[in-house]
Amino acid sequence: MSDVQAYPSSGEPPCVVVGAGLAGSLMAIYMAQRGHSVEVFEARPDMRVRQVDGGRSINLALSTRGLTALAGVGLEEQVREMCIPMRGRMIHPVEGEPHLQPYGRADQFINSISRQGLNELLMTTAEAHEQVRFHFEKPCVDVDLDEGVAHFEDRISRERIAREASLVIGADGAYSAVRQRLQRSGRYNYEQAYLTHGYKELSIPAGPAGEFLMEKNALHIWPRHDFMLIALPNLDATFTVTLFMAFEGEGASFDALKTRAEVDAFFRREFPDAHALMPTLTDDFFENPTGSLVTIRCSPYHHGDRVMILGDAAHAVVPFYGQGMNAAFEDCTVFNALLDREGDDFGRAVAAFTEERKADADAIGHLALYNYYEMRSAVASPYFVFRKRIERVLHRFFPAWWIPLYSMVTFSTMPYAEARARAARQDRMLTVGLIAAVVLMGLMMLALLVALSR
Amino acid sequence: MSDVQAYPSSGEPPCVVVGAGLAGSLMAIYMAQRGHSVEVFEARPDMRVRQVDGGRSINLALSTRGLTALAGVGLEEQVREMCIPMRGRMIHPVEGEPHLQPYGRADQFINSISRQGLNELLMTTAEAHEQVRFHFEKPCVDVDLDEGVAHFEDRISRERIAREASLVIGADGAYSAVRQRLQRSGRYNYEQAYLTHGYKELSIPAGPAGEFLMEKNALHIWPRHDFMLIALPNLDATFTVTLFMAFEGEGASFDALKTRAEVDAFFRREFPDAHALMPTLTDDFFENPTGSLVTIRCSPYHHGDRVMILGDAAHAVVPFYGQGMNAAFEDCTVFNALLDREGDDFGRAVAAFTEERKADADAIGHLALYNYYEMRSAVASPYFVFRKRIERVLHRFFPAWWIPLYSMVTFSTMPYAEARARAARQDRMLTVGLIAAVVLMGLMMLALLVALSR
Repeated sequence: MSDVQAYPSSGEPPCVVVGAGLAGSLMAIYMAQRGHSVEVFEARPDMRVRQVDGGRSINLALSTRGLTALAGVGLEEQVREMCIPMRGRMIHPVEGEPHLQPYGRADQFINSISRQGLNELLMTTAEAHEQVRFHFEKPCVDVDLDEGVAHFEDRISRERIAREASLVIGADGAYSAVRQRLQRSGRYNYEQAYLTHGYKELSIPAGPAGEFLMEKNALHIWPRHDFMLIALPNLDATFTVTLFMAFEGEGASFDALKTRAEVDAFFRREFPDAHALMPTLTDDFFENPTGSLVTIRCSPYHHGDRVMILGDAAHAVVPFYGQGMNAAFEDCTVFNALLDREGDDFGRAVAAFTEERKADADAIGHLALYNYYEMRSAVASPYFVFRKRIERVLHRFFPAWWIPLYSMVTFSTMPYAEARARAARQDRMLTVGLIAAVVLMGLMMLALLVALSR
Repeated sequence: MSDVQAYPSSGEPPCVVVGAGLAGSLMAIYMAQRGHSVEVFEARPDMRVRQVDGGRSINLALSTRGLTALAGVGLEEQVREMCIPMRGRMIHPVEGEPHLQPYGRADQFINSISRQGLNELLMTTAEAHEQVRFHFEKPCVDVDLDEGVAHFEDRISRERIAREASLVIGADGAYSAVRQRLQRSGRYNYEQAYLTHGYKELSIPAGPAGEFLMEKNALHIWPRHDFMLIALPNLDATFTVTLFMAFEGEGASFDALKTRAEVDAFFRREFPDAHALMPTLTDDFFENPTGSLVTIRCSPYHHGDRVMILGDAAHAVVPFYGQGMNAAFEDCTVFNALLDREGDDFGRAVAAFTEERKADADAIGHLALYNYYEMRSAVASPYFVFRKRIERVLHRFFPAWWIPLYSMVTFSTMPYAEARARAARQDRMLTVGLIAAVVLMGLMMLALLVALSR
């Protein structure tokens, strides 16, 4: 940021953030730290006061992009204390011992963090700025896109509230009201695509002495090709377990598990080691909702000079790369940098945000879809493991020249689209190299045989 | 249809068709001819009584799929009398004479027909069945998807009307209210994608003696790479002319044409022969709206047993293959055949409709997007014309084995997805063949030189 940062006069209307979730709360801090007054409107009650019903993942994987965005508002150290490092994927076969596939170098790991804990920290940090105000139980019901006026309705009094804004930031998630308003504007490009698979959250409790019952520093995966179970550790020594599986169809599906006996038998057969650690399995299974998995793509991310969307509202992705929150937080970093560049000219910054961010959001959307296949199926393949091992060796000897895709996405801030293109090139090179190696070895073997037969 | 067609008892609720446009009116006829009672609700006034405002194309290209669907209700002969055959593309270069690129064999042509004339014929034919009733100025405001109840509002009295239906057929176009209701149901896949180009309708009048001022039996194209003008003949010897061009940007665009002088100079420079025939050009240009071009993809096309969508509501396409109406009419043929197969079990027929029709609708959506490039640019390339000529020769000698893509789409009822896949194979074969021919000719030339040099 330059020394002569042009802060707006105090007479300007506030910046209105729609949604006090992870992205909205962080963006509120960024805007406040730039000297803007901010009003945050949230449809649900304050989660710090009243329990908010779930339906979304309990813990999340925080990695470099998210940590970089938190560092930008001085929160990195505080957040790190809430994290459990996960150094790799612990693969659980049906029979035999689990084994660890490291995510990267020995010093690289991703972090399991509680959604609620992180969200509360962000809200409380935002509210500590005197020019930030939160309003709860006030869903957005309309946005006047050209005038920059956001309309809310008080859930209790039914009163309507109109708030003029210098900038409306829609951070209201995959079912964003702000984006729905954009969708009805002229020539808006929009796509919602659901997987035929859904998810169900379950849990593994702590041991009798408050200890973790499985390896703490790993993301556990039970890959079963057409479905999978995963588990992430929590600070209280429990694990949040998630089953991903088809809603319906021929093979394993949520529709096919109708009774407690069926659920129990299914887990006992497919995930015997996890089954042994889940005393409340069948209760959890029938009490917890079955969630759906959506990819949202749209453009542009802005309208005129005064309205923009970010995070899931702009680009919801499936959870299989652990990048949904990280991409949303990176939106804040990117938009903050654009405000630096444009001297807080909101009109130019929001247009530049669409321009800069669209290709990257599309890229992580595609990568996340692909990674479901990788997690539930490829990780169990010896050829996949072999290629991963070669990639790690190449990366060790040529760290700048060869970087595994997972590392570019997870342990760098290289734009997603660039990471995806670079990985495609690396993949082709590796395939050609392996074929060449096989041919070479064949020729050497032939030469040897010819020499021996003389 | 089998002899023992199981007609429903007279006590069943009516089939409710939402939208009295081309697809809705034709579907109403099909359902009536199957013995069902039908109520058609239309948001706009009756176009036979009051002029309905436009914003949509005045004339359309009717081809084999559409004619087949009309033949299915006995209307082919009547419709043929409203048609002007167009035997090929008349390509107008900036300088020099126009030249015809035939669409297919000498006996193959597409048909220019008035949207309003055809729509009126379909409505009047439907109303001639005593069990069909039309209701105008009653937009659909909601659909109870599970109960099969459609809700309408009378535009004049503001009265709400709820109509229970044995089947709700949403034929209400690209901005379909029925589909919008489906979009809000669980896990609905939906995409709307706009071109950055728009269109403007203009016109060429008849000559002083009521004669056509250009070749009557052709679709006229002025391909200019980044934009194009087209013209289709009408029965009154006028031509409806449409300009397709970018909304904004560096090159030619609607945004760049702000004054009458600019419009006049642009047409004089780019389309000199058309310009000379358009006395009301600048009036038309500023009076007529600039339309946008959208592709809609969604799935499924049905919900439960009692709700379905078809035509533009399910799969709006850009107009460049002249297949929007033809695909919508073919939906009626396909659904009618499924009702035959399922003995008018609506639940099974609507599920089969999604299953059968989705891939074909996706295929024509892609083909229509590609064809914009072909019409405005490729048709002006000598290599393209050369390939088309080879394809026509191949088709003449091997009519079953080699069919040009345009002919499969336009002059057959082969499923669109099959046509697209087959054309991709043919394209690869043709490219390989041309390369082989070039290599062979080079070798022959070389052999000749070697022989001569001895």
